[in-house]
Amino acid sequence: MDEFPADKRAGQALARPQVVILGAGFGGLSAATALRHAPVDITLIDRRNYHLFQPLLYQVATAGLSPAQIASPIRRIVSRQKNVTVLMDKIVAIDKSASEVVTSKRRIHFDYLIVATGARHAYFGHEQWEEFAPGLKKIDEATEIRRRILLAFEQAEATVDENERRRSLTFVVVGGGPTGVEMAGAIAELAHRTIVHDFRHINPTQTQIILVEAGSRILPAFPDKLSESAARQLSRLGVTVMTEAAVTDCGNDGITLRDGRRIETATIIWAAGVMASPAGKWLEAQCDRAGRVVVDATLRLPGSDNTFVIGDTAIVTDVNGITVPGIAPAAKQMGYFAAGSILGDLKGSPRRKFKYRNYGNLATFGRSSAVADFGGFTLSGFPAWLIWCFAHIWFLIGFRNRLVVFLDWIVAYVSFNRGVRLITGGEN
Amino acid sequence: MDEFPADKRAGQALARPQVVILGAGFGGLSAATALRHAPVDITLIDRRNYHLFQPLLYQVATAGLSPAQIASPIRRIVSRQKNVTVLMDKIVAIDKSASEVVTSKRRIHFDYLIVATGARHAYFGHEQWEEFAPGLKKIDEATEIRRRILLAFEQAEATVDENERRRSLTFVVVGGGPTGVEMAGAIAELAHRTIVHDFRHINPTQTQIILVEAGSRILPAFPDKLSESAARQLSRLGVTVMTEAAVTDCGNDGITLRDGRRIETATIIWAAGVMASPAGKWLEAQCDRAGRVVVDATLRLPGSDNTFVIGDTAIVTDVNGITVPGIAPAAKQMGYFAAGSILGDLKGSPRRKFKYRNYGNLATFGRSSAVADFGGFTLSGFPAWLIWCFAHIWFLIGFRNRLVVFLDWIVAYVSFNRGVRLITGGEN
Repeated sequence: MDEFPADKRAGQALARPQVVILGAGFGGLSAATALRHAPVDITLIDRRNYHLFQPLLYQVATAGLSPAQIASPIRRIVSRQKNVTVLMDKIVAIDKSASEVVTSKRRIHFDYLIVATGARHAYFGHEQWEEFAPGLKKIDEATEIRRRILLAFEQAEATVDENERRRSLTFVVVGGGPTGVEMAGAIAELAHRTIVHDFRHINPTQTQIILVEAGSRILPAFPDKLSESAARQLSRLGVTVMTEAAVTDCGNDGITLRDGRRIETATIIWAAGVMASPAGKWLEAQCDRAGRVVVDATLRLPGSDNTFVIGDTAIVTDVNGITVPGIAPAAKQMGYFAAGSILGDLKGSPRRKFKYRNYGNLATFGRSSAVADFGGFTLSGFPAWLIWCFAHIWFLIGFRNRLVVFLDWIVAYVSFNRGVRLITGGEN
Repeated sequence: MDEFPADKRAGQALARPQVVILGAGFGGLSAATALRHAPVDITLIDRRNYHLFQPLLYQVATAGLSPAQIASPIRRIVSRQKNVTVLMDKIVAIDKSASEVVTSKRRIHFDYLIVATGARHAYFGHEQWEEFAPGLKKIDEATEIRRRILLAFEQAEATVDENERRRSLTFVVVGGGPTGVEMAGAIAELAHRTIVHDFRHINPTQTQIILVEAGSRILPAFPDKLSESAARQLSRLGVTVMTEAAVTDCGNDGITLRDGRRIETATIIWAAGVMASPAGKWLEAQCDRAGRVVVDATLRLPGSDNTFVIGDTAIVTDVNGITVPGIAPAAKQMGYFAAGSILGDLKGSPRRKFKYRNYGNLATFGRSSAVADFGGFTLSGFPAWLIWCFAHIWFLIGFRNRLVVFLDWIVAYVSFNRGVRLITGGEN
């Protein structure tokens, strides 16, 4: 009676195909909504109760936005879509031979499985660094980073020790990809503009923000000249960009670089590595170094016809030979594609191959500072930033928060105010 | 050079009187702002970095508002008031003979001391209940209660055990004062309206919300007929009100009442007791049963001319013999009064006595449900609720959030939507 539809085993007569989707990120949610009129029963499983607009998570970490402004309850998003059952639960295993997903509470049968469990940050053999250098994939991580950044200023204000003050006013961001660049720019803006009048014993404009990148340039996924433009824009904001600077040690009071240099800092933020969720292990599939399941342009798990792996969990070469990037628009396209393949099966159409559409690549670092790459055509500075703003507000679709974020941004632009400067968590 | 002004000891020549204010709640902040033009140096010390609009904290606990909408960084509030230095630190002791406040990091000299460190919830000898029945005084407590409430619905949806489902769908609020009444009403609204379409296996309208009060009526600070009206309004919202129901045990799966009745529940919220901060101990002062320092209508610590105790930390009988209630407007009035006494001293005026002005007493339980007591004149239902809304938005003064809260409330009123339904913290 109160069983989940998918609780019924394969042996029983099932009216409709059972589609199980793991993960309610951009990929999983797109797949679910694309199946809204399909004669299938969908079980959407996520360990959290909300969908997170991850591209703006760095704004939570730097006190620009509240968590609720970039997160929306999954149940509300699919509230009216009656063929979806949401289950908040953790995946423990996937039993391929029985076509069952095993969660912490039950086993759930599937006729189709879409694996979209995303990725998290990784330290590649240096997991002990996490304590000193938290990463930025979850809301609780973002509020923890916010707590550390704001506490560093408090400590600098309260101490009488010059060395401790200098260490507290030095922030290191490790990793020159979009997240690292956004974090560094946002901390610079917080320090040099927002809190400038708030302290009596320190001068927040003397804050040092250092962006450390192991490779030869920041934003390596962008064209060379945008990397250069980004470095120039960051340095105008007061960020010191260090390239060819691999981290060999992370500790309580600083980092050490491969060439032996030492940076004393109380706050390290890790934006250097990403590791896929354990889906590869659950599926006993071939994975790349970052744990992503290798799938071909049909997005099917090799050797399986009814299991798709999409989004950051997969490493995909599309029909044109392009390696699909690990970004939100790509995950959405894969979600729609996997749903389309299921719909095609129901109609008896042959499977097609995924073609990634690149609508452009954006990164921002602060007010009026951004770069945009649209294939042949690039922008930087204010025009790129305007496009970034509109794109991000636009894609907050499905959130009631679009208007509120928009108002907040207007207020922030006019006032340099970051209202979410709350130190929560910890022992307070 | 970088010393806090008040670090200088009493022996040294000090240009201006040193005023130290402990706590940046309604009382402490009012005192600080009232001294904005005074020739004094103020050190405002709080263990947190934000001022909290506590009357709306229950909205955070029930997913109606985000923490940042009811909290504002102390530094920003007094950013432009150059005679205030803010220190985020914990009070360890007060050295009365040396006229020094001892924090975890330093000793701070004072010529005047205003103690406004507030109160927290209390279990009066049953501290072991806190684990099962968290109280509602801090932001982290509010998000923890929010997590428990939302998880209870998730557990009810996921389980196949009827008893567990019933227990998960039963919510107990202990204490029939304003906080308990507000919590019970807000949970009822969440369950019976907001999430009604979000689940597939449970019917959230079957949620039981039980408000348990040890005394003979809820809202004992209000006139009898408003208590009755409140009980009627709550029962219309689906809240079961139990009076003469003292709790004798609290545990993981329910509570026991003095008459032996047992209520099985997965979620207990404690709104039954308040205990003042340890200020009484620091000051070695005479306190009442709730730990409040007994002061006369001058608000001075007995035996001292330069130390004031105000707000929830004090128990005061005003010049008209009225016991001042522990509410935000009273704390503000006391803050202004203490500041006025210091200003008077500087001008050589004699000390005056505090007169509490009662502008009315309000409590709300949901959309269009409230009671208001203006002395001779009372209101209930929709008119009282309207006044409550306007009063609370009005008194969010100093927050940039007034407009945002207002918009949120309009949206919420139109849509029954509670956007902040995020389960954060815990192990996720």
